[in-house]
Parts: sequence; C-alpha cells; structure tokens
Amino acid sequence: MVVLASGCRDAFLQQKREATMLVELLCLLVFSVRLAHYAKVIPRDKFWKDPKNICIIVVLLLTLTDMIIYGGLKAANCYSVRWSRVLRPLLLINVTEGRQLRRAFRSIRNALPEISYVFVLFIFSVLIFSLMALKLLSKRDLKTIEGTPYFTNYLEIVFELYVLVTTANSPDVMMPAYNKSSVFAIFFILYILINTYIFMSVFLAVVFNNYKKYLKEEIQQLVRAKRHKMVRAFGVLQEQKEGGQPVVSHENWNKLVRQVRPDISNAHKELLWRVCDDDNQGFIGKVAFVQLADLLNIEVITLKSRPHPLESIIPNLYQSGPSRLLCRVVQHWGFVIAFDLIILVNAVFIGLDEENPLISNSEWFFLAIYVLEILLKLYVFEPRAFFSKHSFWNWFDTIVVFAALIATIINSALKSSGGYTSRQVLDIVFILRVLRLIRVVDRIERFRAIINTLIRIGPAILTFGQLILVVYYIFAMVGMELFKNKVKFYEDLSNPESTYCGNPLLKGSTFAQLGYCKNNFNNVVSSFILLLELTVVNQWHDILLHKHPPMLTAVTHKSALIFFVLFHVLVVIIIINIFVAFVLEAFFVEY
Amino acid sequence: MVVLASGCRDAFLQQKREATMLVELLCLLVFSVRLAHYAKVIPRDKFWKDPKNICIIVVLLLTLTDMIIYGGLKAANCYSVRWSRVLRPLLLINVTEGRQLRRAFRSIRNALPEISYVFVLFIFSVLIFSLMALKLLSKRDLKTIEGTPYFTNYLEIVFELYVLVTTANSPDVMMPAYNKSSVFAIFFILYILINTYIFMSVFLAVVFNNYKKYLKEEIQQLVRAKRHKMVRAFGVLQEQKEGGQPVVSHENWNKLVRQVRPDISNAHKELLWRVCDDDNQGFIGKVAFVQLADLLNIEVITLKSRPHPLESIIPNLYQSGPSRLLCRVVQHWGFVIAFDLIILVNAVFIGLDEENPLISNSEWFFLAIYVLEILLKLYVFEPRAFFSKHSFWNWFDTIVVFAALIATIINSALKSSGGYTSRQVLDIVFILRVLRLIRVVDRIERFRAIINTLIRIGPAILTFGQLILVVYYIFAMVGMELFKNKVKFYEDLSNPESTYCGNPLLKGSTFAQLGYCKNNFNNVVSSFILLLELTVVNQWHDILLHKHPPMLTAVTHKSALIFFVLFHVLVVIIIINIFVAFVLEAFFVEY
Ligand code: NA
Repeated sequence: MVVLASGCRDAFLQQKREATMLVELLCLLVFSVRLAHYAKVIPRDKFWKDPKNICIIVVLLLTLTDMIIYGGLKAANCYSVRWSRVLRPLLLINVTEGRQLRRAFRSIRNALPEISYVFVLFIFSVLIFSLMALKLLSKRDLKTIEGTPYFTNYLEIVFELYVLVTTANSPDVMMPAYNKSSVFAIFFILYILINTYIFMSVFLAVVFNNYKKYLKEEIQQLVRAKRHKMVRAFGVLQEQKEGGQPVVSHENWNKLVRQVRPDISNAHKELLWRVCDDDNQGFIGKVAFVQLADLLNIEVITLKSRPHPLESIIPNLYQSGPSRLLCRVVQHWGFVIAFDLIILVNAVFIGLDEENPLISNSEWFFLAIYVLEILLKLYVFEPRAFFSKHSFWNWFDTIVVFAALIATIINSALKSSGGYTSRQVLDIVFILRVLRLIRVVDRIERFRAIINTLIRIGPAILTFGQLILVVYYIFAMVGMELFKNKVKFYEDLSNPESTYCGNPLLKGSTFAQLGYCKNNFNNVVSSFILLLELTVVNQWHDILLHKHPPMLTAVTHKSALIFFVLFHVLVVIIIINIFVAFVLEAFFVEY
Repeated sequence: MVVLASGCRDAFLQQKREATMLVELLCLLVFSVRLAHYAKVIPRDKFWKDPKNICIIVVLLLTLTDMIIYGGLKAANCYSVRWSRVLRPLLLINVTEGRQLRRAFRSIRNALPEISYVFVLFIFSVLIFSLMALKLLSKRDLKTIEGTPYFTNYLEIVFELYVLVTTANSPDVMMPAYNKSSVFAIFFILYILINTYIFMSVFLAVVFNNYKKYLKEEIQQLVRAKRHKMVRAFGVLQEQKEGGQPVVSHENWNKLVRQVRPDISNAHKELLWRVCDDDNQGFIGKVAFVQLADLLNIEVITLKSRPHPLESIIPNLYQSGPSRLLCRVVQHWGFVIAFDLIILVNAVFIGLDEENPLISNSEWFFLAIYVLEILLKLYVFEPRAFFSKHSFWNWFDTIVVFAALIATIINSALKSSGGYTSRQVLDIVFILRVLRLIRVVDRIERFRAIINTLIRIGPAILTFGQLILVVYYIFAMVGMELFKNKVKFYEDLSNPESTYCGNPLLKGSTFAQLGYCKNNFNNVVSSFILLLELTVVNQWHDILLHKHPPMLTAVTHKSALIFFVLFHVLVVIIIINIFVAFVLEAFFVEY
C-alpha cells in the first residue's frame, strides 16, 4: 500500500516537474526569438558590442545546459540542483524594458565602494565591542533566560551584537548583564549609540551622497548624448541658406515632428514652431533646432474654458434661476464641508457592527449621497475638465463610488437570492467603503501637497519594487534550495505535526509555539513573505534561531546564517537606504 | 516587633526624605544667589525683559511652593506628589550655559508645525488601515497565539498597527491572518510600505528640511547681530582722521584685542593687524574693523619646525650614524605595518583564555612593545609637535597604553600580595587592552576621514545628549510618579517573589518570564534605562503589555499607554530624526 501510494506521488511529482520544464522551455524560446529578431534589426557589430545581448545569450545557454543536466540526473534518480534559476532575473534586467531597473542597479554598484569603507569600519567596531563584551562578561557565570551560558563564545557574541544593531534582540540581549549590575547598561548604551544610531546614519549619508552624485552625472551624460544626436539630426536635415548659415526649413521640421510625435495636435505643433522660430523667419538655425527634443517633452495642458454641454442642449433650463442657485450651492465651501461631515459620519457607521440592519441599510443612503455628489458636480463643472488627466481625485472618487455601488448591488443580490453572502464580494465592498474615506484629506491644502508628492514619486517607487523583487527572487531561489521543506505548515491545526511544524527537531521550540510555521521557504510566495519579514528586521533572529533549541541550527547547519547576514547587508543596509535617500531627495525637491 | 520594624523603616524613609529636601533647598539657594548676582550686573529693564530670567524665577517660586505643600502634607501623613520635579530641567535650560541646549529646543519647536501636518496624515493613514483591518478580519473568528480574539476591537487594532510602524510586533501581528490565508499578507505589506518606510522617510525629510532652514536663518541672524555690535564698538573707538573718514588707531585696536583675548600671543596679534591694515597705514577703517570678530575666531596653528630637544642636549649622539638609522627605521612605512601586525596578534591573544599563564604573561610583552613604540616616536619626533592639540591619536595612544600599564601593575600587585584579584581593576585592564586595538583604523586614509568626521561632530552629539537627558528626565519623573514600585526587581533570584516581579498580577506573565523585572520606574537609573529601551523601540509593546495578562493593564490603567505613545512621538519620531538629520548634514558637509 505504502509503496503504491509513494509510487503514485512520485508519478505526480514527475508530471508536475515535466510541466514546469515545458513552461520554462517555452520562455527560453520566446527570449531566443526576441533576441534573434533584435539581431536582425540592429547592425551586426553593434549587436555583439552590447554587453546586454551577450549576457542574455550566456544566460539562455546556461539555463539550457542546466535543464539538460537536471533532466538527465533526475532520469537517473540522482540528486540535482536547478542552479540556473538564480540567473533568471538577469534576463529580466537585460531586456530593453529594464532600463529603469538597470539604472537602479548601477546606482547600487556605484555606491558600493564608498559603502564598503564604512561597512569595514562598522564591522571593526562590532568586533571590538564583542571582544570587550567577551572579556567583561564571559567569566561572570551569567546565564541567559534559557539557562545557557551568557556571552562566552566570541562568534556568538559577534552575531548577537550584530543583531542588536538592528535592535531586534533589544533588550533581551542586555538583560542578564543588566540584572547583574546596572553598570553594564553603559556598555550596551554606547554600543547602540555608536553602531545603531551613528553608523546607520552614516550609511544613509554615504548612500545619499553617492545617489545624488551619480544621478547628476547620469543626467549630464544623458543631456550630452541627446545634444549630440540632435546635432547629427540637424546635419541630415540642414539646407544652405543665402546667409551662409545652415538652417532647417519649417516644412522639414513639420515632417520630422509628425514622424516623431504623431499624437500632438496642429495647434500644439504651431506653438512649438513659434517658440523655435521666434523671429518668424520661416526657418531655424542649429541652436533652435537642438532644443526641439526638450520642447517635445514639455507637457502642454490645454485649458479650454469650454461651456457646459447642457448649456447648448437645454440652454433655457440650465440658465434658469434655480439652476444657477444649484451651481452656486455646489461651488460654495459649505458644500465641501457638508460632505466632509457626511464622510466622518460614514466612517463611524463603517466602524459599527454590520449585523445591525440599521447600519447595513445606511450604506444605501451613503452610496446615494455620494452618487448624487458626483452627479451634481458633473452638472456644474464641464465633464471633460472634471475628468481631465490631471484630476486624480475626481477619477479616484468616481471609480471608488461606482465600484462600491456595483459591488454592493451584487452582494445584496446574492444575499436576497439565497441568503448567501460571498466573503470575497463582501471584502471588496468593505475595502471600497473604507477607501471612500480617504477623499477627506484632499480638502486641506497642506495635505494635498504631501499626497501629491507621494503620488508623483509613485512610478519611481515601482522601479524600486522591481529591484527588490529581483533581489528577493534570487534569495528566494537560493533559500528554497537550502531550506525547502525543513519547516512545514499545516492548514489543519488539529494535525499533531502542526505543533512542531512537521519537524521533530522543533518539538517544544518557541518558533513553533509562536505559530511561525508558515515562515518557510517551501514555495515562492511564502519565501517572499519571509524575506519581507527579514527586511522589516524585527524578530529576524527569532525567525531564524529561536532558542530552545536554536531553530536554524536544528534544521540545517549553522553556516546558513551567512545567507541571512548577506541578505541583511544587501537589502536593509544598501537597498532600503537607497530607497530612503530617494524619498528624501524627492521631498527636498518637490515639497 | 513588626510595628517596631515598620516604625524604624518609616523613620529611615523620613530621614532620607529630609536629606533630599535639604539638598534641594541648597540647590534652590544656589540658583537664587546666581540670579540675584546677575540682576545686579545687568540693567534692571534688560533683566526683566529676558524671558529666561522670568522663567527661572517662576520655577524657583513654584518649586518652593511645592516643597512647602509636600512637607505639610507629609507631616499630616497625606498622599502628595512632588510635581515640581518635572520643572527642574527648565532651570538647566535657562541658565547662560544652556545656549546650545536652547538652540536644540528651538529647532524642535520650529520643526513642529511642519511635522504636525505629516503626523496628522500619518495618523489618518493608520486609522484608515485599522478600519479596513477591522472590516476584513474581525468576523473571521481568528485567534491570536494566546487564544484571545484577533483584531476585533477597533482601538486595539489601532494600537497594534501603530506598534507595527515601529516594526516591534512584526511578524507576530500578521501571523494569525497570514496563517488563515496568504492574501492577507498583502494588507500588511502595503501597511508597512506606506507607514513604516514612506511616512517615516517623509518625517525625516521634513525634519531635515526644517533643520537646515532654521539653521541658516539662525546663522544669518547671528552674523547680523555680530555686525551690528561691531559697528557700535567702532562708534565708541573711532577717531576723526584728516581725510574725514572715521578710523581706529593701531594703539586702540591693540588695547581692545588685549582686553578681549588676553591669551593670544604678540606674534598672532601682529598677524591679525597686518591682515586688517593691509595698506600699512597705521589705522583701519570701519570695514576692516568689523571683520575683527571673525579674525579672532580663526584658529592659528603655529607650525614651528623646532629642532628635537635632544639635538641640543646630546648633539653628537643624536646626530650619530646609529641614531640616524633608528630615525629612518621609525619613519619607515614598514615600522607602521609591523606594529599593525603586532596589534592583530595582540587581538587574538586578548580573545584567548586568560587563565593560560602564557596568555596572561604575554600582556607584559605587548605592554613593553607599546611603551617602546611611544618612546621611539618621542625620540624621533619633536615632543611638543607629537603632543600638539590636534594630534588626537597620539594622545589617545599614550593615555591608553600608560593607563593599561598602571592598571596591569596594580592588578598583578594585588594578585601577588594575596592571590586576590579585584574584579574592577581587571575590568579596567580589559577595557584598556581592547581600546588599544582601535589604533589600527587610523593607519588607513579613508577610515581616518570617517573617524575624524565622527570626532568632529562629537561635541554636537553631546548637545543632543543633553537634550535627550532633559526629555528623559521629565518622562522619568512622570513615570516614577505613575508606575513606581508596580514592578519590583529582586537581586536575590531565589526569592519566590522574583518570579513574578513582586506583583501577584504578573504571575505567569511573559514579562516576568523574560526576566524584565528590572525594566521599571522605581529609581532614576532604571527609569532612564527603560526609556532608552523604549527609544530603541524593539519589544516596547512587550515591555509595556506583554500578553497573558497584558502587563501594563495588569499593573495600572490602560490610559497609561498615552504616556508611552507620547514618548514615542516626541523621542523617536522627532528627536531621533533631528539627530539623524544632524549626522547626515555633518557628513554632507565634511566628508
Ligand atoms: Na525592531
């Protein structure tokens, strides 16, 4: 029976493995075709000079080799590692769309030498403090709360103090010494002051300085490259005028702009030409031509004071006394305040118990009010101006209110059709309901400035998101290879194995007691969430090596710590600091 | 018997109380005398216009009133609070020496309006997320690891999510929802991204911007005030010259400088005059006079290439061949590297077991080597140049080596006299021994630059230290009034009361199990250390309200949380950010 079941499971696993490999082969094929197409379009010598293309080819070949070796070893039932998975992000980075990502990686690479000096100094400081701790505390027969000897092994002290830099084991690491004598607190206070507060600030300062320096250099380089290309374009288009100066005629200029930006209107094009040819000569010189690229990047907002469409459809009614009064009411500041108050009352109602019929029915009232508000605004303001590209909050408002309306209708239809409530629909209703409340912050000028800055840095934050995802992916792949299935999570909590995460070594461990079983490397999703928890830093030593017995040492070898310290240095010390530097700079510029 | 003992204890407490009050009265007297003297020196209207003096008088009067009321109530055996203790830091801030401290407080006050806008937005975000968490999670019958209902009370959710901003309860606060479904992790990831990473960076950005803005304004104001005063001084000293322009003669100028800076040498004074009177006219005009204040602030380093004193004492020997060879050896880079290697070997020996006689005797060898190094350097380099004001590392080296020598001699004298080792002396020996190793970083140019920046910002960090101490003092005084003796620490761990910190309400609490009893408000020292732990933030919710049963609610009222949240906002969000902004700015300027 058992053999049969195990045979079945093996067959299932093999099928799954084959399916995964098929998908992977397809991906490889897509990348290869893409590259082949690219090689056809671009001149041959240029193609081979670009390190990005070389990188893609090498990764594709390595992945193919790895798949063949893996398939062969698996067929021979040998243990094998899919090491090429770690290389996958390189494909993502090196395609043309990864330009932002490449820039982010460059800024890390550029910051590395400076950071490494501070890092060496910081590690030196940790080592010196650890040596002092060893000399001062190892011979005092102190015990940790678990009853093990306290601060007797140098390498353990170094790790504990390294963790203290992240504050994750404060105050526990201090307590045995502090309980012995208050004087020892001085040691830890100095340590935290120097290593947590000063050194971490110095890291931020160095990262920030480098970030700004290389940003400046990169922008200068871009500007120079653009200028160079524009001069070459001028060389192609130029005509010799009687004065002897080479110029570009209005006609050629028009053709060029139509090719480069077919989307811009004639009025916009005419405006740009007027700016270039400010003497109205019918042609422009080199200097005026070169600025074209910058001119095309300027966003021209067309502010048309168009009349309201209703004014042409029902002029008499729209211009009548009551209609004018309504317009004045909607534009009055009292209208805004009234709706703010309604939102606040709504917030209280949302917080109250849903099962009370009064409360659940009040939702219809609020929805009606919000829809009415939007309709009134559309009656008063010109709809195209109201829904212009830059009216973020109007879009937000309308989408959230109408989505909430639809979701609420679906929910109550489901409910009345069979007394059945879909949890998913209800969750969406709740989320939309709460999102509506955000609207209130837009009313205050100062808040709007802050929120607008946050919205503007949104796209750049997404680039950082990509960067973090790439780094997470690499660590997740390595982590899955090292720690897969060492710790198991059971949905069914009545399963006795769930009390020790399916690993007898963790019986009675605090890791299992805290319900951390799902913090594992068994699949990509849980790996990513675990890495996020390690990024947030708190409890990271507990996640890794909760005492009684040390979790990590229990399930693998102690050297696995290197993996986690490396992750901490790369993500928390470097990437998070670049992120903070980036937000700081954005606020210095915008706010 | 018991009555007698308790009577004794009361008498002892009363004596102690009386002694404290006597000391306090003496302090009040000192401050009063100081103020009276100041009032005599300064013109009357100026004295009463200065808010600092008014503040000191009010605090002195309030303290006196409080002491009288307290004494009276104690005599009548009534409960009484020494509320005026909170005012004490005001005395410290308002004396003339507190100028730096006042400036630091001003920078906080100036940053407050801007910070409060971001803070309101941040709190709004926490409230919105909490409402969403309530709607999404409260009806799913989830349980925390302690078996209590998870996320069912709005205010508790707000507090838990506020704590999550500090990352102190990550990942525990997420685990019940995450164990239910991985989808809920998205909620917490978004929360941490927005509130921990973005909002905390925005706080830093706002604080940094304000810090720079007001620093600039303050410096401009100082420069203007200085100029104004110098112009007035010029008006007093001026003489009418034949040209019609008012001038100051060399003679008057000399008198002035001698009065203002009696410490500077004649050569230095002559140099300054030459700079002012660059046409060598014998008198200077208004413009040249006004820059005097800045000139006096410039530090003039006298670099004299003095011959070595031994050259005049034993010229033949000092100039002989072997002596010259010795000088060349000491100045060679190999000499530096040899000593770096010795330091590294020394570091290994320090880390090894002290009880091995080879190891403990090796200390004499290393001490001899280090003393020899210093003597050799003194032989080669001119001693006054070697010990100049700016040779920080030479001073550091010499002091540490000779202190270690003395301490080691005392230690071995004690040991040989009775086989007795004083723990304190040994600790000092260990500390000095490890400090010697720091020397190694000075050899690398890049490290020296970083260390020098850190040393240069040292004095300003001390100002921040004062600021933190003042804020800690106020919170410690209030904390002691609110929480004194609610939690007790017993030196003697065999005392059964030590397992629950002397408070039956804490029986079986994790707070007691973690050995946190010494984290209490029973005296000034432990209050300060507890506040430092709260500044470091980690485990702060655990220190306050470790579950089974919630510690804080167990020993006091829930509203005591306000005290801790207020502390967090003031110290962690404002002061620590100002500190980081300050280190950042120092590194932007210096490095
Ligand atoms: Na933490």
